Parts: sequence; structure tokens; C-alpha cells
Amino acid sequence: MSDGRKTAACLAVGSELLGERRLDSNSLTITRALARHGVVVEEKRVVGDSVGLMAAAIRELLGRHDLVVVTGGLGPTADDVTREAVALALDRELEPSAEVEGWIRDRYARLGRRMPEICTGMARVVPGSRPLHNDRGSAPGLMVEVGESLLAVFPGVPWEMEEMLERDLLPVVARWNPGVARISRTLLLGGVVESDTEEKIRHLYEQFGRENVTILAHYGVLRLVLSFEGESSAATRRVDTMEAAFREVLGDDVAGVDVDSLAEVVLEKLRGRQETLATAESCTGGLVSAHLTDVPGASDVFLGGVVSYSNEAKETMLGVAPELLLEHGAVSEEVARAMAEGARERLGADWGIGVTGVAGPSGGTEEKPVGLVHWAVAGPGGLWTKQRVFLGDRAIIREWSLNAALDLLRRRLTADPL
Amino acid sequence: MSDGRKTAACLAVGSELLGERRLDSNSLTITRALARHGVVVEEKRVVGDSVGLMAAAIRELLGRHDLVVVTGGLGPTADDVTREAVALALDRELEPSAEVEGWIRDRYARLGRRMPEICTGMARVVPGSRPLHNDRGSAPGLMVEVGESLLAVFPGVPWEMEEMLERDLLPVVARWNPGVARISRTLLLGGVVESDTEEKIRHLYEQFGRENVTILAHYGVLRLVLSFEGESSAATRRVDTMEAAFREVLGDDVAGVDVDSLAEVVLEKLRGRQETLATAESCTGGLVSAHLTDVPGASDVFLGGVVSYSNEAKETMLGVAPELLLEHGAVSEEVARAMAEGARERLGADWGIGVTGVAGPSGGTEEKPVGLVHWAVAGPGGLWTKQRVFLGDRAIIREWSLNAALDLLRRRLTADPL
Repeated sequence: MSDGRKTAACLAVGSELLGERRLDSNSLTITRALARHGVVVEEKRVVGDSVGLMAAAIRELLGRHDLVVVTGGLGPTADDVTREAVALALDRELEPSAEVEGWIRDRYARLGRRMPEICTGMARVVPGSRPLHNDRGSAPGLMVEVGESLLAVFPGVPWEMEEMLERDLLPVVARWNPGVARISRTLLLGGVVESDTEEKIRHLYEQFGRENVTILAHYGVLRLVLSFEGESSAATRRVDTMEAAFREVLGDDVAGVDVDSLAEVVLEKLRGRQETLATAESCTGGLVSAHLTDVPGASDVFLGGVVSYSNEAKETMLGVAPELLLEHGAVSEEVARAMAEGARERLGADWGIGVTGVAGPSGGTEEKPVGLVHWAVAGPGGLWTKQRVFLGDRAIIREWSLNAALDLLRRRLTADPL
Repeated sequence: MSDGRKTAACLAVGSELLGERRLDSNSLTITRALARHGVVVEEKRVVGDSVGLMAAAIRELLGRHDLVVVTGGLGPTADDVTREAVALALDRELEPSAEVEGWIRDRYARLGRRMPEICTGMARVVPGSRPLHNDRGSAPGLMVEVGESLLAVFPGVPWEMEEMLERDLLPVVARWNPGVARISRTLLLGGVVESDTEEKIRHLYEQFGRENVTILAHYGVLRLVLSFEGESSAATRRVDTMEAAFREVLGDDVAGVDVDSLAEVVLEKLRGRQETLATAESCTGGLVSAHLTDVPGASDVFLGGVVSYSNEAKETMLGVAPELLLEHGAVSEEVARAMAEGARERLGADWGIGVTGVAGPSGGTEEKPVGLVHWAVAGPGGLWTKQRVFLGDRAIIREWSLNAALDLLRRRLTADPL
């Protein structure tokens, strides 16, 4: 708190978050929301359903941060002890609240059910706190000022948590730095590796501040988050300037701005051209079409695809000539081309994508090692192919292949504007 | 620590783990490994690259737990300050170590490069600690006893962390509870909803202890983790007994034991029967085939599939009769059957899966709402269909559909043994 910047901590509560499979992801939502208002999450914690550990954590965090956001443990069962822990940390005694009990009874009434007796536990409040209504569930939240700091306590269910975060907490946080905002913009890059991009943009770090640029790499897709904190319109202008400078250097590597995926970019470009797409997949086994159809409204553009996991499927479903398979093998530039062309023709689409490769872990040879992938795009104006040996396990090789194939189409659509 | 059970805490270090996208997943690996030896992770934390916050966290955690495992921040750059933080927390001064510098120089020599000067920072050790060799990278780790507690510090790169965890920490932890182990077994259930399963197994909680049973639900797939802690062979016998009791109650809901996915179960069953599979997908858009081909060796069994995202694709690629589409619509039992049958015939497989539905968010009608899904399985002995309206967003509806389709096939293969 010393440099005048407000800091926050997230505390997630629940023994299931200390197991072998689940992670607390509410903190990502909270971090993102607070960042918009210039508040930085400096610390995260997870504790189980223990009043003592939770109270100790709340006390420590309130001593260090302007804001502490606790999620989880507000339900009606015996292992929901967050309310008790907050009371203990603040050295207060929980009191029943007729108003809050009314909220819970109303909710059950709307559902046409009687409120179970166990729910009265949720109607006890920490004296001096503001109870928060839960429009999306039954467990109320709470906010309370403790000395110079603010403690906010929300349910662990993301859908319920998000409502209270937006409705109750963010308006308060927005008043802390009036007019100050952190404006962020994300450039999505395709067909690149991190070190090459770093090399290209390094000189811009100095100009705009290393802390204002974050790179997130994911197997051929790279997200470059540009951000700036300040008075809202000045920060927006600064980010505009950053975007222009980065685009200048990165050129066609930039697939889109504030978009989720290469699939979204490709579908949007095709939609604008009123053109359609079909896929033919071997080593990616359906991942390319699964990613395309993950985007709502994909059916405008995407007609369908073939997963040709056997040579017979390549021949019968895509019309790949048996001689090509015999002469060059299933993993070859020739077969990738024939697959892209086959998808295009058989499904009557303007564009076709073909991917074939050795995803491993077995099936590699000296000539065609695990990780060798050929991909091709067939369109109204011609046929393009690429190949590479990707390093990694089966899942990673498939992920690289998916992104590489979508990016080749993306670059062809950019290079050939209508 | 009061009940004699050893407890641990994980502290992940790195500002990137406090951003809007990344979570610390090393703690899952550590939790799993420690659980095998009866040590329970009671608390997790994440802090940024700040010496002060990190030292405070280390001190607090050492005061509370038998074991504190720190990951990250051991590299050579200016923001790698974990070593300094450990020294500060223990009130000691870092000292250069010729032995550790030798390790790092050797590694660079093996890579045919000179060690950059910046790397000497990694060769400073905390007096009284045991430096840990890094066979998979250059940053050394460390372990040090502090009063009654043990502090272990590993690199953040999972591949490097895992080596030190297994080689250096687990042998020490194993000696804490000699002969005591936590034995776990996971039953994979398909085609079930959590509340129904809870109902069926509730009476077994009392018999075996609520804390020994964990349920993890994921859109029609449920994992039931049965575990028991004790002397190794006695614990194994106890888990055998638990498994038998749960199987007795759950019957055919159990798809497999200690397997990763329904896809793996289905492929293994088909492989045993020397039968093959093909898919026809509409609303899942390739997810079913992507999940099947995620399993290494799927090509033995899975011949391929068609993603028929348009009516034309259903007709031309799968032979679905235009009359069926006209009369019943693309989302109908009749079309699901025709798709499964079409996949089977066109791809020459023994079994075919067909899935068609309204994934949303748009495209729903009163008669066929968003979430309505029909799925079918065609096999040597007949055709089976099911339908349901799944609740959730597009991704969730697709996930439910994927699992429902694989589970219908799984149940058919179980019901019709060869």
C-alpha cells in the first residue's frame, strides 16, 4: 500500500480446493475485475473448512491489504464456516437477522418450497457488516470495513460470486481511484513462436514500460496484453498508441484484437466474404472442427468435416487417390493437399483445410518422426501447404497442429482480400 | 499438527500467477504426492516476486505446518528473488557455493555454451540448507530444517519441480509415517447425475467414513475417489472392500477403475472385441472424435467420423434421407439414428455413434429448446437412441452430449458381451 497503489488479496475457502484436482478459479475473475480499477491482487490463498486457519488468514491479509475478497463456505451445511471465521477474525459475535432470513425464505417461496431449518444459519450476520443479497442462490454475502481495509465475502459458486462482485464491490472500488482505470487490449497472434516475437518487440518495452506488456504463449498462438493505467480517456489514447506501435512491428502476425481464438477470427473473415469452410483431419482427429464449432453461430460458415483416421476413410470419404497414399504415405504434403481439396469438394465449400501428421507417442520413423505434421488450405484461388516437426507430447502436437492449420487459412484470407 | 497428522502448505511464487489467466498447478502434483504418504496440504498461497511478502509468508507457514513447499523464483533474472526471501525469512545471509556453481557450469558445458555471468546468483546458498541438484534445468533447489519443520524450495517449471519432489522430498516424507500410506482408487461413472449417485451411496459413507470418499462431477461423468490411510497392505485390502461395496450398489454405472476417460474405456472394450467405430456429429462438432483420438493408439479401433454441420453434409456424407430431415428436422431421434447408421456404413465400421442437438445460444424453439440433444448408437446387434434437454451454456451442452454419446456406446458394449 506504500506507493499509493491499492492492493488486494483473494482467499478461497473449501477443502475441495485443497484436493488433487480442483483449483480456485474465482480469483482470476476477481483479479480481472479489480485490475480495471487499478487495484492489484498481490496475494492469493486457499484454506480448508477450518475456522481457525481461515480467521488467521483473514486477520493477516487485512493487516496487509486494502481489500480482502473471500469466496466460499457461506452455504448452510456444517462444513460452511466462513461466517464464523469472519466473526472470529473480527472478534465479534454472529447475530440473527430477520431481514436476511426474509431474503432466504422469499427465495424458497419463489421456488415453491419451504425453507429447510438448516438455512437459518445463513441468516446470521456479522455486526457492523452489510449483508449482500444473493439473486442467484440462497447464501448471502457480506462486506465490512475493518480499520482502513475492506473485507468482502462472496459465495464460491462463480455465477453467484460474479453478481455480488459487479453489483456490490466494484462500485466501491471504482470510487477509490476516481477516473483512474486500467485499460487493456489483447492482440491475438497466430503462427508465431514466443522468442521470435520477443525479439521483434523488445525495443517497445522501453518505450511503453515492461510492466504494461504481458505475453502469454500457447502452442503457436500468442496473446500480447497491452495495458495502461491512468485517467480513463488518457489511458485509452495511450493504449491506442501502443497498439499502433506493436501492429507496425508485428504486421500480419496479428490475427485480431480482443478476440478469443483463431477460430473466431477465421469464421468472422469468412462470414464477411460470404464464403464457407470444410475440414479434413487426420492427426488432429476432430480438434479443428471442434474448435470452429465452439464459436456460437459457426454454422453460418462451417459446413462440416471429415475425420479420416484410416487410409480407407481418406479414400472413400475424401477421394484421396490410393496411389498418393501408397507413394507418399498418409503423412505427406501430397496427402494433406488432397485432403484439403477433398473436404472442399465433397462438402461443397469455398475453402478446405487438411491436416495429417504423426501425433505419437508411437508411429514415428526416422524419415517421419513423431511430431511431423503437414497441413494445407485449398481455396478459390489455389492451394497452400506447410509442414513442421512439433516437439511435445501427443496433446501438445495436436494443439500446435490445430493452431497452425487455422492460422494458415487466416493468413490466406488476409493476403487475398475480396 | 495437533492430531498427530503431519500437515503441509504450498507457496507458489511469481507475478504471472497473480495475473488474469494463469493458476498455480504445481500444488496439485505436490498434494497428490504428499497424500500418498499421509501428509495433508492444509493451505496454499501465491505471492508475487516480492522479497518481503514472500519472507512473511514463509515465516507464517513454517510456524503452522510440518512442511512448507515453495515453487518458483529460483532462476537467474532480477525478478527471481525466492533465494533472498528464504534467507530473510530465516534471518541468514546467502553465501556463494563453489560446488553449486560447478553444477551450473557443468550443465552449460554439456550444452556446449559458456555459463552467463548472471547465473552465479543461482549459486548462492542459504547456510545450513541442502542444495538440490537440478538434472532437468539450471536452477538448483534447496531443503532446510527450521525448528520442527521442513522447508523445501523447488523451481517453478513443473518438469524440474517434479524431479526434486520425487528424488529429494518424498523419501524424507516417507520416513515420517513409516509403513503408512494413503491408497486411492478412482471409479469412473458414466451417464449419471451427481444427486442420484449420492442417493445410492449415502449409506456407504457411514460404513467407510465420509472423509474417505470424494465425488467429482463433470457433466455426466463422475469420479468417485475411494481412499484409505494406514499400513500399506491393510489400506489396500480396505480399499478393495470399499470398491466391492460401491460396485455392488452402482452396478453398470461404473465404467472403469483408475481410467482417465469414457473414451479410453470404449476404445479398450472395442479393441478386446476386435471391432471398429465411426462417428457422425452435429452439435458436438467433432468433440466426440477429438476425445477418442486423444487416447494414444485410438487408430486401432477408430476409423474416422463425419462432422455434418449442415443438412447437405448429413445427406451427402452420411446418406441421411432428405425426407427425414424435412419431416422430423435435423434435431430428431430419426436423424440421430440415420447419422449413426450412416457413419457405420460409410466408414465400414462395426459401430456408429450419431449426435444431433441444439447447442445454442440461439436456434432453440418452443418444441426444440436449446439443450435438446438426441444421440444414437448403431451396432451389429441393433440401434439404440436416447434424448435429453441439457441445461447450461454452449460449452456445457456440448460436454454433456459428448459424454452421453460415449456412455451409451459403453453401456451397449457392456450389455452385449461377445
